[in-house]
Amino acid sequence: MALLLISPKARADAWAEAFDAAGRPLIWGEAQVRDPAAITEIACWKPPEDMARYPNLRAVISAGAGVDQMPALPPGVALVRAVAPGIEEMVRDWVVMASLMLHRDMPRYLAQAGAGAWKGHPVAQSATCRVGILGMGRIGRLVAQSLGTLGFPVAGLSRSGQAVAGVQIFDASRQAEFLAQTDLLICLAPLTEETRGMIDADFLSHLPVGAKLVQAGRGAQLVLDDLRAALENGQIASAMLDVTDPEPLPETHWAWRDPRVIVTPHIGAETNAQEGARHALDVIAALEAGIDVPGQVDRQRGY
Amino acid sequence: MALLLISPKARADAWAEAFDAAGRPLIWGEAQVRDPAAITEIACWKPPEDMARYPNLRAVISAGAGVDQMPALPPGVALVRAVAPGIEEMVRDWVVMASLMLHRDMPRYLAQAGAGAWKGHPVAQSATCRVGILGMGRIGRLVAQSLGTLGFPVAGLSRSGQAVAGVQIFDASRQAEFLAQTDLLICLAPLTEETRGMIDADFLSHLPVGAKLVQAGRGAQLVLDDLRAALENGQIASAMLDVTDPEPLPETHWAWRDPRVIVTPHIGAETNAQEGARHALDVIAALEAGIDVPGQVDRQRGY
Ligand SMILES: NC(=O)c1ccc[n+]([C@@H]2O[C@H](COP(=O)([O-])OP(=O)(O)OC[C@H]3O[C@@H](n4cnc5c(N)ncnc54)[C@H](OP(=O)(O)O)[C@@H]3O)[C@@H](O)[C@H]2O)c1
Ligand SMILES: NC(=O)c1ccc[n+]([C@@H]2O[C@H](COP(=O)([O-])OP(=O)(O)OC[C@H]3O[C@@H](n4cnc5c(N)ncnc54)[C@H](OP(=O)(O)O)[C@@H]3O)[C@@H](O)[C@H]2O)c1
Repeated sequence: MALLLISPKARADAWAEAFDAAGRPLIWGEAQVRDPAAITEIACWKPPEDMARYPNLRAVISAGAGVDQMPALPPGVALVRAVAPGIEEMVRDWVVMASLMLHRDMPRYLAQAGAGAWKGHPVAQSATCRVGILGMGRIGRLVAQSLGTLGFPVAGLSRSGQAVAGVQIFDASRQAEFLAQTDLLICLAPLTEETRGMIDADFLSHLPVGAKLVQAGRGAQLVLDDLRAALENGQIASAMLDVTDPEPLPETHWAWRDPRVIVTPHIGAETNAQEGARHALDVIAALEAGIDVPGQVDRQRGY
Repeated sequence: MALLLISPKARADAWAEAFDAAGRPLIWGEAQVRDPAAITEIACWKPPEDMARYPNLRAVISAGAGVDQMPALPPGVALVRAVAPGIEEMVRDWVVMASLMLHRDMPRYLAQAGAGAWKGHPVAQSATCRVGILGMGRIGRLVAQSLGTLGFPVAGLSRSGQAVAGVQIFDASRQAEFLAQTDLLICLAPLTEETRGMIDADFLSHLPVGAKLVQAGRGAQLVLDDLRAALENGQIASAMLDVTDPEPLPETHWAWRDPRVIVTPHIGAETNAQEGARHALDVIAALEAGIDVPGQVDRQRGY
């Protein structure tokens, strides 16, 4: 029984240390696999094409919080997302930064700075900017807490509408109502069949005129051409995108040049190797104890 | 007994409403003053040249948290800074944004975006970036709390070294020690004789190589040419400035063009007229009751 790690070398060293300390076998890279029947878990961004090669595989662990890059797995193999405070806090930090940048008009000030123009505009208090978080999962809840502490009124939309202390939660059936009272929309949803292409012209039209958009989920959730039209007609005032469709965003794409849009190259978070290894060891322990696997994805829901 | 308000019209309307409700006389603009002897307080950014005209003046209230723009006042006249949660929270928000922008390499990503370059760099956790706040007053303490919650280790430097819960505080005599353990320096000090020109080449040389600087105090505290040299030799990696010397920063100034520096035009906060009027009424009540005046400045210290 061994875990097969598919990752860059630097990451593999940290995993080897953690697995050694735990007395657990780790194999780095498919080339090192002598006995495919010994492989019980694979940790990777994307698994090998030929998973049938591993008859005793019981779990595939994603290197990221999202699992939308994963192909269908053989029946009986658990799909597990990364669970790491480091990832969640890094995304939270990026989202708090992006939200403040839009709230405090940084796109406008950056454009002015390019022209050497010293010109102030009215400053708004956080209390006047209603934040709406699409996706109230592990990261969405951290963001809600941080922005709430900074004085922003925060609401959230989730599939189930499950309650979150201190936040007004809307379930998916009340999406239009949620959007109508959102001045700054933050997307932190997973990419699923339901959320693919979700943020389109119709969706954006339910926001108040001049709303702002922070996109930290997955690129394919947002129809970039519809965002462009909404910027042109004033429906959306500005946007900050860490994920795009496609990635990388081509050098000549309009979004790089539009002063109302700021794009970062999917740098919301980076998996910490130590945290990743620790989570993988927890997954193995749970599989062996026959208890709930931390981060196991509901294949039906897709997250 | 009346308060003379020197301010734009929009602000005056809100003050008039608050003073009417409190049954207190308010005069807007020197042109409206019939009996100078009736003026007991002046609320303004800068007071009239000829303050001797007002024999019964007892306080001058600044429109801002800083009072460095104020001339010497006649003896016996109290100098009062603005005290308003709105101002303090707005500056806190700007500083949290600026700190995250530097921590998360936004100057570099903005430069890349200008070239349409999708290229990620290592992402650091907040815990690895030691924040040092120069000036642990009303605003510095709010910033310490917010950045602490986001996982940054926070230390503070103040003149007195007065304790602040949860933050390691250095007094002015331990400045070099404070700087040596500061990866991200935030200036939130008042402009005084001691702090004018304080952030110069010698000061910056005590920071670790590659430190970052957030300047939200007053422009004249930072020697811009010394910052430029420190950016050139790598001592400072990047900076975000809301205040500069001079203001406005001239259109052709190098700081607008340096990709490692982001300048905003002194938009950290804007006084909220309602909060300003409420504070002024509190000042008047305290003067009449003979108790401590909220926001009264120690003329000796200069803040
Ligand atoms: N930019 C980056 O670098 C970066 C890094 C990490 C993660 N991410 C993205 O962030 C996402 C969220 O991560 P997480 O750890 O917070 O995920 P999570 O804990 O699985 O939470 C997902 C949330 O989205 C909600 N949701 C799912 N489908 C929805 C729908 N159709 N309509 C409305 N809400 C829906 C879920 O609702 P329920 O509560 O009802 O289940 C849940 O609240 C990831 O999937 C990934 O795409 C981005
Ligand atoms: N960018 C903007 O838009 C904006 C807006 C508002 C204010 N500001 C600036 O922010 C400053 C701070 O505001 P505040 O309300 O927090 O002021 P505050 O409550 O008066 O606090 C000032 C702090 O600075 C410390 N200090 C004073 N001289 C010092 C020195 N020589 N060395 C080290 N520390 C020193 C004080 O030390 P002690 O604790 O020992 O007294 C105190 O902790 C204002 O003076 C203004 O310049 C900027």
